[in-house]
Amino acid sequence: MNRKLSLNAFAMACVGHQSPGLWARDDDQSADYTSLEHWIDLARLLEDGGFDSLFLADVLGTYDVYGGSRDEAVRVGAQVPVSDPIPAISAMAAATKNLGFGVTVTTTYEQPYALARRFTTLDHLTKGRIGWNVVTGYLDSAAKNLGFTAQIPHDERYEIADEYLEVCYKLWEHSWEDDAVVRDRERGIYADPAKVHDIGHHGQYYDVPGAFLCEPSPQRTPVIFQAGASPRGRQFAAKHAEAIFVIGPTPAAVRRTTSALREEAEKAGRDPYSIKIIAGLTAIVRESDEEAADLLESYRQSASLSGALALFGGWTGVDLAEYPYDAPLVHITTDANRSALDAFTRDADHEWTVEELARWVSIGGRGPVMAGSPTTVADTLEEWQQEADVDGFNFMYVTRPGTFTDIVTHLVPELRRRGLVAPAPATPASLRERLGTGDGARLSAAHYARSLQIAAPTPR
Amino acid sequence: MNRKLSLNAFAMACVGHQSPGLWARDDDQSADYTSLEHWIDLARLLEDGGFDSLFLADVLGTYDVYGGSRDEAVRVGAQVPVSDPIPAISAMAAATKNLGFGVTVTTTYEQPYALARRFTTLDHLTKGRIGWNVVTGYLDSAAKNLGFTAQIPHDERYEIADEYLEVCYKLWEHSWEDDAVVRDRERGIYADPAKVHDIGHHGQYYDVPGAFLCEPSPQRTPVIFQAGASPRGRQFAAKHAEAIFVIGPTPAAVRRTTSALREEAEKAGRDPYSIKIIAGLTAIVRESDEEAADLLESYRQSASLSGALALFGGWTGVDLAEYPYDAPLVHITTDANRSALDAFTRDADHEWTVEELARWVSIGGRGPVMAGSPTTVADTLEEWQQEADVDGFNFMYVTRPGTFTDIVTHLVPELRRRGLVAPAPATPASLRERLGTGDGARLSAAHYARSLQIAAPTPR
Repeated sequence: MNRKLSLNAFAMACVGHQSPGLWARDDDQSADYTSLEHWIDLARLLEDGGFDSLFLADVLGTYDVYGGSRDEAVRVGAQVPVSDPIPAISAMAAATKNLGFGVTVTTTYEQPYALARRFTTLDHLTKGRIGWNVVTGYLDSAAKNLGFTAQIPHDERYEIADEYLEVCYKLWEHSWEDDAVVRDRERGIYADPAKVHDIGHHGQYYDVPGAFLCEPSPQRTPVIFQAGASPRGRQFAAKHAEAIFVIGPTPAAVRRTTSALREEAEKAGRDPYSIKIIAGLTAIVRESDEEAADLLESYRQSASLSGALALFGGWTGVDLAEYPYDAPLVHITTDANRSALDAFTRDADHEWTVEELARWVSIGGRGPVMAGSPTTVADTLEEWQQEADVDGFNFMYVTRPGTFTDIVTHLVPELRRRGLVAPAPATPASLRERLGTGDGARLSAAHYARSLQIAAPTPR
Repeated sequence: MNRKLSLNAFAMACVGHQSPGLWARDDDQSADYTSLEHWIDLARLLEDGGFDSLFLADVLGTYDVYGGSRDEAVRVGAQVPVSDPIPAISAMAAATKNLGFGVTVTTTYEQPYALARRFTTLDHLTKGRIGWNVVTGYLDSAAKNLGFTAQIPHDERYEIADEYLEVCYKLWEHSWEDDAVVRDRERGIYADPAKVHDIGHHGQYYDVPGAFLCEPSPQRTPVIFQAGASPRGRQFAAKHAEAIFVIGPTPAAVRRTTSALREEAEKAGRDPYSIKIIAGLTAIVRESDEEAADLLESYRQSASLSGALALFGGWTGVDLAEYPYDAPLVHITTDANRSALDAFTRDADHEWTVEELARWVSIGGRGPVMAGSPTTVADTLEEWQQEADVDGFNFMYVTRPGTFTDIVTHLVPELRRRGLVAPAPATPASLRERLGTGDGARLSAAHYARSLQIAAPTPR
């Protein structure tokens, strides 16, 4: 088979994303994350190297479960300090022509009317290269600083997100008709007010009666990404997402998720393969297997185990600070934390200790790690593509930009040789066209957003 | 006297900011506002031309008072459609070294915890070149789409803004100590958690118990700009602002405002001249008086009177759609709208008609308009500097970038010849250093923000 693979880079505006502590190495430049040059150089590297997009993760809180405080995360630089991912995008867009930009933004803490405008602005400025990874937030430490006493319960966050997207879709897809903007210089008419409509949204969580503030952008709706793996999250993804990030230790484990997702999409009336499933992983690629293995081993020596447990605490709510490193996880498992721990270890072939868990998480977070020559890694990726039934990969970094430089230098040429990577578009294309999830740059006509009704046009 | 003048450009991410309808001229490029290139070219023009900063206005609603609908604003492109001003900034920053960027953001519609992070991110990425024009919003059409049934009453908006800034200051100035970030690569310590503090803010409008998400940026607090002219607005500005935008038809009218502001600052315990007062105006500059006058006349022919009345309606709440153009304003004045109309016409030497008001507003909005040779306009600006006691100007555009190109080409050289403009800094400086309002890049030690207390450091 020769399904093309979507190649994406996963990063975050901080020093330690999925490999805490690595910033301290001489060959790592993550600590330059506050400079524009760092991001511009990264964007150019990825575009020239054949990546489809750069995905920027985000959190609005600190990881403060481990040991009951944020101290270890702050000390190690594990996702804190963290900048807003959006402001650097236009500088990266100006330095590139084809690279897409996905950005994680939560639906819980800001009004949709304002966020919808920010995304449309980004879509205009990038000429249709923007995607939105829709999340609902998971850190109590964020909720408490953003007007809530604690995180809203998980499933209700998805109810809110559902309505949030409905509001955004109405603004993006239905408020301004395709021919509303006429730019008639002779008659001095910029837009035809009869073709700009109030959306009249009055829902359970949001009241947005008015018209959108922006004229339609190339994609109108940014490409919708989602990563929720819970039953409610999968249902949400099947309804909204054009691409879904999945993560799991083995192709078999991921296959269970992709099957469930494609099934859910079919239930929602969509072609199950119209949704692109992108697996997160870490690939260390050098000329030979040995060189790559040595490099990975050297990375492992640099990784911070306490930083890994700080991240683990935030992701799962399980505080492992009170246990010695050699404690077997099986003795720590309780009814309350079983599913969290299982998710991390279910395909492991033996009972892990706290230290083994920390070592695993400390490079590449929750995702699998592979190291090898271009041939070895390309073989493994083909295996993933087939066994896990995924459409592409979201490559995490260990060092930034080192991990990406190695992928561009060693891996992409091999993937190209095998015909697994589409050539860069001859003329700049939108992110949606590059992913092939819609009708050209626009959301597919079959997508739920396109069929939404807005209030009857204002009588005039 | 030879006080240097601060030169700033005033623009907005839309086609018609203060001169509605001009976008339709062949010599205007405003309709390219959705492209990054438009903004990058503008930033380079301003930096090379000796401007200190570019200020970006914003509204989150449409002007829908005139005729009871937004239709005229949409037709003419009067501040609608309008993009988010923030996303383009990093691309402009990457293309410049010294230009500052001020941006208008309201305190009414977003949590301070998230906005504080966005500003710190911008301050990092621009290397200390960011300013915030703090506004509280004035359009009902914005409030209704952002979770309110109507605009919060004027003075209460300032109460909220006061606490909003208090939260931001605590996050920016007090959460992370100066030496909290150590970046100790040997020991793998990014920051010292003992020097990162919860702010423990529990106020009337906001609860923000935690620590800031960002490490300190060059300026920490962005340069604080303000433009409120009401008594409550002046009091707010005297407490917070490092620079204040004023607008008025004549030097004498503006002098009344600057005197009141400097008095209010003194009452608030600040050096009245530590606050920079920047007057908004429109200057049409060509080689000769005649050429400039002709150009202005040609601009007036292109301006949209209905667009002007649409803007006027949004600014004042007064709908002039029901009156004929030749109706004298004196007959329209009621108790309810007197102050709004007076503010526009108080220095006029005769009773205006609706049409005269519309003509005045249609070029340069509420501000004065001057046209002439470099000598004439420089003379007028010197007169303003002295009579109105202002520290600089915020130049509005009629055509974009035409008005700015003319200022750069014709006016700035004349101002330089007179020693009224400081040379560009030899090495890149922060916006605050360029304005001279603080202690280097940091807020002045005398500023209220610096003396705020946060909750006692978390015991550990």
